Amino acid sequence: MLSIEKYQEEFLSFLEDYTVVKEPKGLYNPIQYILSLGGKRLRPVLTLMTADIFGGNYKDALNAALSVEVFHNFSLVHDDIMDDAPLRRGEATVHEKWDINTGILSGDAMLIMAYQLFENYNAEAFQALAKLFSKTAIEVCEGQQYDVDFETRIDVTIPEYLKMIEYKTSVLVAAAMKMGAIVARATDKDQNSIYEFGRNLGIAFQLQDDYLDAFGDPKSFGKQVGGDIIENKKTYLYLKALEFSSVQEQERLENLYTLETDKNEEKIFVVKELFKSTGAAEATKQAVKDYTNKAFSVLESLDVSEERKQLLKDFGTGLMSRTV
Amino acid sequence: MLSIEKYQEEFLSFLEDYTVVKEPKGLYNPIQYILSLGGKRLRPVLTLMTADIFGGNYKDALNAALSVEVFHNFSLVHDDIMDDAPLRRGEATVHEKWDINTGILSGDAMLIMAYQLFENYNAEAFQALAKLFSKTAIEVCEGQQYDVDFETRIDVTIPEYLKMIEYKTSVLVAAAMKMGAIVARATDKDQNSIYEFGRNLGIAFQLQDDYLDAFGDPKSFGKQVGGDIIENKKTYLYLKALEFSSVQEQERLENLYTLETDKNEEKIFVVKELFKSTGAAEATKQAVKDYTNKAFSVLESLDVSEERKQLLKDFGTGLMSRTV
Repeated sequence: MLSIEKYQEEFLSFLEDYTVVKEPKGLYNPIQYILSLGGKRLRPVLTLMTADIFGGNYKDALNAALSVEVFHNFSLVHDDIMDDAPLRRGEATVHEKWDINTGILSGDAMLIMAYQLFENYNAEAFQALAKLFSKTAIEVCEGQQYDVDFETRIDVTIPEYLKMIEYKTSVLVAAAMKMGAIVARATDKDQNSIYEFGRNLGIAFQLQDDYLDAFGDPKSFGKQVGGDIIENKKTYLYLKALEFSSVQEQERLENLYTLETDKNEEKIFVVKELFKSTGAAEATKQAVKDYTNKAFSVLESLDVSEERKQLLKDFGTGLMSRTV
Repeated sequence: MLSIEKYQEEFLSFLEDYTVVKEPKGLYNPIQYILSLGGKRLRPVLTLMTADIFGGNYKDALNAALSVEVFHNFSLVHDDIMDDAPLRRGEATVHEKWDINTGILSGDAMLIMAYQLFENYNAEAFQALAKLFSKTAIEVCEGQQYDVDFETRIDVTIPEYLKMIEYKTSVLVAAAMKMGAIVARATDKDQNSIYEFGRNLGIAFQLQDDYLDAFGDPKSFGKQVGGDIIENKKTYLYLKALEFSSVQEQERLENLYTLETDKNEEKIFVVKELFKSTGAAEATKQAVKDYTNKAFSVLESLDVSEERKQLLKDFGTGLMSRTV
């Protein structure tokens, strides 16, 4: 087993060899650009780590790990077009730096390239990996569609919201880990358990993102604190606040969330007070803990040493104690 | 062996069972819509026919055939966004009927669904089909990028143009046929030969499209005759005309092709005269014949009966004698 930093390093060196720009440059330059923008490389690291945990060799999992990262970046390129986002990791998004058509086409190529990375495995592993990948990728598309649908709906329920973030975010974390298990030839039972671990951890991660977007430390939080509130995003915090509110508070919150205002600071302040007074803030923190614990309890059934289970727990604990 | 019409029928009934609309509707309705718009279903028919030709059963090739058709329609949805096209087969394009974001996301889902259709095959066939599919899909993206690049270039050569149409159009025809051969467990040699047949036939088909766009019968040609001329498209006709022109004629043609004019009828007339007088029209017709014959000559080495080779020739001849 290596340290997280060492897995990151190994992955980045593999990535560097991969992103050689080919012809036509108009197609491949944007791919090289987005893949080099950085990020935590969380998902590929999980693939490598999981392969080692199940007694495989992380080196055999590098292609699968890269596939996950290429797919993740494909989804960023297309999502950024759909969200009309100018910036990604502090740099221009692909469709800003080039144009929308480039973003569409280079994104398409990345989705195909993600599949091609599985060609380095034998037929059985190839099929297992590609099948899991397709199922996951379709769910990510469905999650994105639900997210779009929710923008114009006022009756989104908590279970619907949880399904949306599960599809949009956590299934890819889960699949990243299961791919490591597939490469390491773990048993079906262990493959499914590690998927469940990743799925629950992914949901916890996204709920914490919701929480930090409102209550994170402005000094260390990467994005603008209160961004979700400004954009009237119906996050877990918001839906919980509605659930816990009196009819009057509900109306007040719903009014605030239909408003386009110049007074963003004031709006953020008022909404955050409501998140706190209704108990939504506390409930969100609790949900993060619950999903993290659910993830940890899945580990018990795993057929690996206590020491390795502890590594996964440490990883989860580290992720959940983050303030950025 | 069935007739072309019968293969079409069988394919359409398979397609109908496939396009059941699921949730979220915002993602799947557009997919059902574009797949139902019609078209000749040329590619999937070729997959089915080829499976039978190599002694397989076309029924086993239905999933592969559908994959090719889903991919083809994915590329139409994304290309129509890039080309800002309002109509497809006489109906509104997906991004016109819904919006650009819907076109992007539903297209992405179709690309994934195309891979999923291979899951109905065993691991060996799955890998062979998915590998061929990925290679082809990436080439289609590259072809689209070259097509975009050529719009702003004035030094496009004939070999570059041929490579572009090969990637953008003919590799998918070739892959559609090779997939039929894979499903029928044809030898590697036969698989490669049928691919070469499809590739050459695909190039002939596209060159004929270039020809018909200018010289097709307005009564039977589906699109506006002269559409490529209006859009200043550097087709084979145009590039050959430049090659065969005197310096003066070259300047005249290049001038006509930088022009945005209201007098389209006049422009079409003048350009077509140049296509004829330079010999470009004749040369294009000859190139269609040459690529068709190249395709036919590949058939000789095939390990199938003369009768079946004749079916492929008849199909090719039928395609090349079309006026629409």
